[in-house]
Order: sequence, then structure tokens, then C-alpha cells
Amino acid sequence: MNSSLPSLPSFPEATVETVRAAQRRLHGHLHRTPVHRARSLDAIAQAEVYLKCENFQRSGSFKARGAFNTVLSLDDPTAARGVAAHSSGNHGAALALAARERGIKATIVVPTTCARAKLDAIRRYGGELVFTEPTIQAREAAVAHLVAESGAVLVHPYDHPAVISGQATAALELTEDQKDLDLILTPISGGGLLGGTLLAVEAGGRPVRVYGVEPAGADDAARSLASGELQGNVTTNTIADGLRGALSARTFGLIRPRVAGIVTVTEPEIIAAMRLIWEIFKLIIEPSCAVPVAALLNGRIPDAAGRKVGIIITGGNVDLGELPWRQVRQP
Amino acid sequence: MNSSLPSLPSFPEATVETVRAAQRRLHGHLHRTPVHRARSLDAIAQAEVYLKCENFQRSGSFKARGAFNTVLSLDDPTAARGVAAHSSGNHGAALALAARERGIKATIVVPTTCARAKLDAIRRYGGELVFTEPTIQAREAAVAHLVAESGAVLVHPYDHPAVISGQATAALELTEDQKDLDLILTPISGGGLLGGTLLAVEAGGRPVRVYGVEPAGADDAARSLASGELQGNVTTNTIADGLRGALSARTFGLIRPRVAGIVTVTEPEIIAAMRLIWEIFKLIIEPSCAVPVAALLNGRIPDAAGRKVGIIITGGNVDLGELPWRQVRQP
Repeated sequence: MNSSLPSLPSFPEATVETVRAAQRRLHGHLHRTPVHRARSLDAIAQAEVYLKCENFQRSGSFKARGAFNTVLSLDDPTAARGVAAHSSGNHGAALALAARERGIKATIVVPTTCARAKLDAIRRYGGELVFTEPTIQAREAAVAHLVAESGAVLVHPYDHPAVISGQATAALELTEDQKDLDLILTPISGGGLLGGTLLAVEAGGRPVRVYGVEPAGADDAARSLASGELQGNVTTNTIADGLRGALSARTFGLIRPRVAGIVTVTEPEIIAAMRLIWEIFKLIIEPSCAVPVAALLNGRIPDAAGRKVGIIITGGNVDLGELPWRQVRQP
Repeated sequence: MNSSLPSLPSFPEATVETVRAAQRRLHGHLHRTPVHRARSLDAIAQAEVYLKCENFQRSGSFKARGAFNTVLSLDDPTAARGVAAHSSGNHGAALALAARERGIKATIVVPTTCARAKLDAIRRYGGELVFTEPTIQAREAAVAHLVAESGAVLVHPYDHPAVISGQATAALELTEDQKDLDLILTPISGGGLLGGTLLAVEAGGRPVRVYGVEPAGADDAARSLASGELQGNVTTNTIADGLRGALSARTFGLIRPRVAGIVTVTEPEIIAAMRLIWEIFKLIIEPSCAVPVAALLNGRIPDAAGRKVGIIITGGNVDLGELPWRQVRQP
């Protein structure tokens, strides 16, 4: 997607101030999601674990925070043109819901391979669907055509200051509700959540160490940090379908000077951690959410032992007919 | 199980006062579980729905309330003999946890057919397992032998005032946290939760109408109420494995004069409601919890339209490898 978003009104780069402004703007529109704990997980993790449950957020994921902040930031003439995105996941549903709340139109470009549950969610929130072949070329052509014809405002899933500032409010709430955290872990895809979380910690003023975690099969961020230069993904082979994106120059610029580290986990580690969270916490979480939990459980976070560790649980929109721990067969 | 519990110290019949005492006794031992809402479910149900999330309770179900209240009520010499139960479900895990917290031994008699996840939970909380053939005769013989040999105190899953009074505290919290409820719905198995909920509503002093809901395939309570006489189950053919029990004289005596009605739902209605709760609320709930939700969604509660309806979500201990909406195959 075109990350320059030329049709959005000018928006300052994401800072501590834009994060605080986002929190004020979102008040009353979104849930202040709860923080869950479980003694049995603490015993396994050998740490005090605090899950910030964005699976309970409106639209079922933290993406609502970025989408709402962006849509609510538009001036009236711009908003009247409607919004658009391409998304096969949570961003599309979140943007559709934010647009409905503002009373404007949302058009979401989706690949023909998009999971039924995701399509249903976008439709449930009143979003209009445009289908394309599942190639980057087809997708970009569809989006360009849509924007040219409708004048709709393209909203990128992470590479925009309004989106990053909104996503940051999850960690801001977490640090407000649990003031003595030592660490925060987030998953990484495009880096909007991690970049925003680092700003939120700065806003809080306490020294909380923030780690990003990504699947070994989509490890652009780990390689980017190690090399000091922005790297793309070599593969996107991971069950964590929300984490196949890659850092942008903007998110890498936020992350690089601030992050405590970026670590990776394997696919079996992700699946085992996901099932453990379901069993112990009774929370429905996406595979992406299990990625930082897997890092903690498998000793990848060097300074977690005995510490208070916050983890952003990013969403709960999972296809219940296709759970990864069993081969399933249609009835 | 022998419901007279001769080895328990004398305990007054369950009343508003024993319910209030249970709440004081449980304070600090158990979670005050949250109440969840979702606008999209309200739209489908055409009512304001408040889910009291006992799936987040310690041991994963409301059964912890009855087990803890009973175990914490024992005098020291009695407690020192340990506790016992037969259970292939949540009561066993709850009793094991309560016993561990009191520092005494719990022995749980389980059928050899017991699901692995349930055995793991009992073991995780330090309970000792005794296996029997899955017949009533074998089970009762095993329990009798166990009690005779060890002197352990048998704790019935519902037919005891201490258990009922503890289970009542879920509804007591719900009416405290949501003071303007019009109705409360609970599932019915042995009637401890429903009977306790009716006492809790009395304790609250507001006119809240309470309905019990059970599977059509295990409808002893509906037939008992209709006939005015205690009836057993004719079948226990239901996926709601927690609801295969039958009312006792004690629980029927509590329920009959107080309940607003008892209604039934079909198996497809239960499965559809369970999946809807998983998808909309991102909560892992057992099939039993879906039973009252199914009644609401299928128009079985006559006076629910537009009302504030509380539902006790009883537990979240479900075998994740055996979900009812798909045939599953071991990998």
C-alpha cells in the first residue's frame, strides 16, 4: 500500500504528545481493556505475567486503536470522502467499524483467498468489500483504481503517525493500570505496535524495557536491528498470519534507538504457547498473540526471570474451525 | 455419592445468611470475576446481556466457590482427615485446589473414561486420583472404600448447604456489580447454582426474575417443576457434560417456590450459542455455559426483550481438541 497517504491531512510524526492526544481522542469510543493474570502461568514462566487483553477490544483487536485515531482525526471534508484500506485481517474490520462510528463509508480491498470469518467481520461493521486476486500487483492496482475513482482516504495498517499513536494507547493504559512493570513484550509485524509501545513507555516516564518478538519465519525486524539497516522478510512462513508484514523506515526509526531487543520464536513454540493461553486463561487469542508469550516461556527474554512482564495480547479473531493443534475436517 | 455427608460438621441449611457468610469466607481466596458485555450480542439478543465470567474463576469454574466454602468451613480436626469426591469434571479440580490452599489432602475418584484435560487439572492442583470403572456401582464402591479407609470428608458437588451457599456468591457479586438487572439465567444440573442464585437474589432485595435452563436431553428440572414432584432424568444425552446431574430434594426445595421458570434448549441451539460466544466475546466457555445463552437467543425466556439479563458463565474447562462444531481427527 502507498505509505505516503497523500490524501490524509498533515499529521505530525508520532511522539509522546501525539500518543497522549490519541488517548484523549479515543476516550469513550473504545474499551479500556482488562489486564488478566493467572498464577499457574506465572509458575511456568517464572515471572509475573500481565496480559493486556486487546482481544476484548472493539472489532476484536488493538487495530481499532489506530483506525479510530486516524478516522477521528480527519477533518469533515476529508472524512466525507470515505476511507479505504487493503487488508485480509484485523485492520479492515477495525477501519470499517471506525468509519461506521464516524458515519462515513469504508471500502476494504481483500484477496479472494480471504478467510470467511474475516469477511464476515468486515461486513458486520458495514464495510464494503472489493475482491482482488491475491497478488501484490492485483492488490495495488485495485487500491489505486478505488482511490482514483472514489477519492477515499487510504489508511495504512501501520505506517502512519496517527495509526502508530493510536496503537500506542494499549501500552499507555497497561503502564497506567500496572505501574510497576519491568518489561513489556509485543509481537512485531510492521512495527506500529512496537514503535507506539516504546513511545507510550516514554510517556509513562518509568524505565520499562520493551522487547519485540517475531516468528523466525518472518524475521525482518530481528535482522534489521542486528544489521542496523532496514531488511525485508526473506520468508513469511508462519502460522501467525498477523505478523507477515515488514518494518517501514518510519517504524524502524522509532524502534531502533529505543528497543531492548528483538527475539524470534519457532512455529511449534508459537502453537504450544497459544494452546497454553487458551487452556489456562480461557482467552481466545490469535496465533500472533502467542508469539511474545512463547518467547517468555522458552527463555528468549534474557532479563525476565522473577520480573513483572506485561504482554500486549493483540487480538482474538481466529478461525475456530481451523485450530492449529488438530487437523480438522469439515463436517 | 452419599449426599448426607455424615462426616461434615453440622452446617445450617442454605439461607440468605449462609450466602452472605460464604462471601465473607471466600474473600481473598477467590477472584471477583468480571462481567463482560458485547454490543453485537445485544443486537442479536435484543436485550442487554451481562456475562458473569466464572470461566476466569480459579480452577476454571464456579465450582471453586462451593468447594472453597466447604473446605474453609471445616474445623481443624475434621479438615486434617482430608477431603474426597467423585467427579469427572470441574468439582474435582475445584476441590483439589481448595484442599491444597488449606494444606490438606484431596482424593478424587474418577472414571477410567475421564478426559485427559480433566485429569491434568486435578493433578495440577495436587489432587490424588483413584480410578474406577465408569459405572455407578463401581464408583460408589470405590468412594465407600476410600472413605472407610482414610476417614476423608466426602464433599458432594451440589447437595450440601455449604456448597450451595458458596455457589450462590457468583450471583451475589453479579447483582452487586450490576444493580439494575431484570433477569438472571443459569444452567441447571443438580440445582446448586440455581438454588444459590435464588438465595443471592433474595439477599440483594431487588425483584430479579431468575430462570433455569437445561438441555432438552437432560430435562429433569423442567419436568419436576411442571409436575410439582422431583423427577429423575430419563436421558442424559447432551453435549453439555456438566448438566447431566439431577435435582436433589434439597435443591428442588430451594428452586420450586422461587424460580420464574425452567426452560429447555436443543443440542444444535447449544452448539450454535457456544460458537457465537467464542466468536463475539473471545471467551472460552464450556457447552454448559451456552445453554442459558441459547435460551435467550431462541426466544425461550418470555420476558427478556429489551431487558437487562445477567447470565452466569459457569466455566471454561473444555477439551480444545474436541470442539463440537467440527469433526476432529487426531494428528
